[in-house]
Amino acid sequence: MDTGYAGFEQLLQGAIERAAGPDCPPLLARALHHAVFPGGARVRPQLCVAVAAANGGNDPELAAAAGAAIELMHCASLVHDDLPCFDNAGERRGKQSVHRAYGEQIAVLAGDALIVSAFEVLGRAASPQPERLPQVLALIARGCGAPYGIAAGQAWESESSVELSLYHQAKTGALFIDAACAGAAAAGVEVAPWRELGRCIGASYQVADDILDATSDALTMGKPAGRDEALGRPSAVRELGLEGAVCRLRELVEESVAAVPDCRGRERLQGLVREQSKRFFPRGAGRQVAA
Amino acid sequence: MDTGYAGFEQLLQGAIERAAGPDCPPLLARALHHAVFPGGARVRPQLCVAVAAANGGNDPELAAAAGAAIELMHCASLVHDDLPCFDNAGERRGKQSVHRAYGEQIAVLAGDALIVSAFEVLGRAASPQPERLPQVLALIARGCGAPYGIAAGQAWESESSVELSLYHQAKTGALFIDAACAGAAAAGVEVAPWRELGRCIGASYQVADDILDATSDALTMGKPAGRDEALGRPSAVRELGLEGAVCRLRELVEESVAAVPDCRGRERLQGLVREQSKRFFPRGAGRQVAA
Repeated sequence: MDTGYAGFEQLLQGAIERAAGPDCPPLLARALHHAVFPGGARVRPQLCVAVAAANGGNDPELAAAAGAAIELMHCASLVHDDLPCFDNAGERRGKQSVHRAYGEQIAVLAGDALIVSAFEVLGRAASPQPERLPQVLALIARGCGAPYGIAAGQAWESESSVELSLYHQAKTGALFIDAACAGAAAAGVEVAPWRELGRCIGASYQVADDILDATSDALTMGKPAGRDEALGRPSAVRELGLEGAVCRLRELVEESVAAVPDCRGRERLQGLVREQSKRFFPRGAGRQVAA
Repeated sequence: MDTGYAGFEQLLQGAIERAAGPDCPPLLARALHHAVFPGGARVRPQLCVAVAAANGGNDPELAAAAGAAIELMHCASLVHDDLPCFDNAGERRGKQSVHRAYGEQIAVLAGDALIVSAFEVLGRAASPQPERLPQVLALIARGCGAPYGIAAGQAWESESSVELSLYHQAKTGALFIDAACAGAAAAGVEVAPWRELGRCIGASYQVADDILDATSDALTMGKPAGRDEALGRPSAVRELGLEGAVCRLRELVEESVAAVPDCRGRERLQGLVREQSKRFFPRGAGRQVAA
């Protein structure tokens, strides 16, 4: 989504330059770079700043900081999810996973430092509306920790009995809901109407990822393919078949477009959501869903 | 230190009740409780609120939130430091370490969720001075992440060549400096003069821990003893001998007392620092240094 005011990529650069500065232990510094650059599609921060812009956001600095924070959290979760005790994945984004490249200790610490860095970016936001910071911070914390965030989502995989709706919402949905709601909060508008957009885009993304996992090889995905099947995870393709999953994805994209609440830039944002969703489909242009 | 306005213990309770609520995966919920309660001596949050009180702090809510945040970070770092890829410690605070009790996956995620929760507590602080929040947040982030925080401190242990001063400052000193400075920031006074107090207390604590590690058995310490020697870590006892280390500790306590900057409650705070330090000495009353 070309939102006209990204900015979050510079904030990501700045955050990693600070964290991985000359006084940083060298392996940790390299691991921090490795985890964040080059990035995936940065879909979460783009959603965040697009929502803020659609609301005529008068605080693009805070929106960009929120987007960068969410992306840093996402990167942290990928580093930890790849650890030997979880997926034990050797590849991510077409290169070695962090623990494969720098060892398990450094991977644990890099994830920790990225979580800290996410909140640091928020705290340093050159925002003209600092009174909005606590709400944005609370939203992002909710999407990342327990009981509703990605840490809790991952933790459901350690349980013998799983609350599937909580699992999906927390594991994949939370950061998308975060992104939409934090964009709204940064723009100073009511947050609740934006949850549904985040939920729908998150669900689309989950189904797209299931399709990709079932249909791709590791080279296309940049990470090991066929993992859902191998690990017995819930997957839309297992549940609905490939064709059914593609249908479900198509519905979810329409639901996402319809879920954009009334706002100044509604039509433009709907166009962006539809455009961005094209990359979710396995046979469209830009078929990869970058993780 | 009885500061007259603790409050951080209730905030810790509230934070864990929220994170480990009914919707939390049950193992993660139990791990979060296990990691934070019953606590150690809570020396860092006590230092934080004592500094705020000594400055006639007009924002005890923010000081208590900062203290709770620092303690949650400390608990997170203990959970991750005990992991098999680091110390592989089976015990902590006289009971099983988190990964021993709940598995490695849950231990990684519990640490992550505690870091998130630390910032959430800050964001939720019912502070009458919200404009102080960004500075308090930035200070705590600095003490926890990279390049100067506890994550970076731990990462020095993965390097073949170690910057000893950076290592010590980041590994043990950072959270004490954090605690002193965040207390000052919460009280709205200049932060820089308080760094030295945090540094001295952190150094005392490190020497006390080295002495304890060298002289105690696991039952007294509540965690495995003799680890510094076994792991070839730098230690004041290895460097100075036991007697030399006790002398050094005595000097550091005096330096800590002298380092209390001019402020309304200087004498009282000096008394608290001296009183608190008694527990650092192996032959005094309250000989245990709770980790």
